[in-house]
Amino acid sequence: MTLERAAVHDLLAEYGALLDGAKYDEWLGLFAAECCYSVIPRENFERGLPVGLMFCDSRAMLEDRIMALREANKYNIHTDRHLIGLPRLRSPEAEQLMVEASFAVFQTDQEGSTRLFATGLYRDRLVSTEGGLKIRDKLVLLDTFAVPTLLATPL
Amino acid sequence: MTLERAAVHDLLAEYGALLDGAKYDEWLGLFAAECCYSVIPRENFERGLPVGLMFCDSRAMLEDRIMALREANKYNIHTDRHLIGLPRLRSPEAEQLMVEASFAVFQTDQEGSTRLFATGLYRDRLVSTEGGLKIRDKLVLLDTFAVPTLLATPL
Amino acid sequence: MTLERAAVHDLLAEYGALLDGAKYDEWLGLFAAECCYSVIPRENFERGLPVGLMFCDSRAMLEDRIMALREANKYNIHTDRHLIGLPRLRSPEAEQLMVEASFAVFQTDQEGSTRLFATGLYRDRLVSTEGGLKIRDKLVLLDTFAVPTLLATPL
Repeated sequence: MTLERAAVHDLLAEYGALLDGAKYDEWLGLFAAECCYSVIPRENFERGLPVGLMFCDSRAMLEDRIMALREANKYNIHTDRHLIGLPRLRSPEAEQLMVEASFAVFQTDQEGSTRLFATGLYRDRLVSTEGGLKIRDKLVLLDTFAVPTLLATPL
Repeated sequence: MTLERAAVHDLLAEYGALLDGAKYDEWLGLFAAECCYSVIPRENFERGLPVGLMFCDSRAMLEDRIMALREANKYNIHTDRHLIGLPRLRSPEAEQLMVEASFAVFQTDQEGSTRLFATGLYRDRLVSTEGGLKIRDKLVLLDTFAVPTLLATPL
Repeated sequence: MTLERAAVHDLLAEYGALLDGAKYDEWLGLFAAECCYSVIPRENFERGLPVGLMFCDSRAMLEDRIMALREANKYNIHTDRHLIGLPRLRSPEAEQLMVEASFAVFQTDQEGSTRLFATGLYRDRLVSTEGGLKIRDKLVLLDTFAVPTLLATPL
């Protein structure tokens, strides 16, 4: 259990650090071979409307999407900073672990202005693999349906 | 000690998650039967002025207050997002534990704007009960005496 | 390993709490006798330009700098609030430990306005001493080269 908690902390810290360092290939490596990644406004999710800003139900799709974002990013150059709160470990089952954590993402533009970009909740299903703990499903519940600018990097 | 630390992390993570999910009854369940909850601007506290924005010295009073807030909330519809920093465990005594943690609360309004609402410090006295670790006293030291809008949900 | 992680959490939590409480002498005590503290915009660091906002390569220099800041602070009275994310423990060697953690600092001025001041990444080299875990080197990588106001307190 304690080992598990340490591994969850490591995975979340790594997740934020790799995105903030723009190391997207390594970031993809945090996901299991079969995985699902989606970004949905909290309001839609609570009403049962699965309309989201991003939905990838395979790792190939996630890789494609990252490539597209990198292209788009040329027109929205910025750096990200993730702050991830204490995780809540829920209903652990054999070889599965549900984890929730609040997050805030701040963006800094080329003029050097740092602004709050988005807040929300990660709801992750983690699986134990030979390569360690990996993300099987990641649901990013955004607090707003109106992200201020283009979603140019994964959250 | 390690078990204790894990329990403190769980309690803080649960605290933020239940408020952000508007699950106020479950949130009340995090407090001990005898408890005290107060919200005081840091400046007042440091000057020894106990004038606060909220003061409840029993769980019945806290329950009453939550009911009133729910009513008030109808005119200030928003969602909260708590980010709680790494806790500092202090002077643990037998069956008592002092915990401090920085927090930031972001609010999202009905137009979808997410803004920083407040920052401050939690100073908690936790007790070990049959139902697990509970909050005996919670002092919310707000960094500002001027919260931008009505304190419509607990911090 | 678990003890080590707990000690890292404690050190980071203490670091933020002492700065936010303006307890600068105790804060200095978190550094090893030989230490280095620097604040560098991330962009400069990545380009190999070591031009920073603050650079102290001895504890005496850090002490001097703190004295000067206290003087400067009389003209920029505010309080700080640090939020430090989950740390990433890297390549632990014998008696050395590399730790990275995202942070956000919020400042509250005398009118009671709380604003985001800066975000960035701590990159710390910690050493085990007789007095416990201490900071040997602290590199504060700021997300922006343009801090909105004078750097009036350490980050």
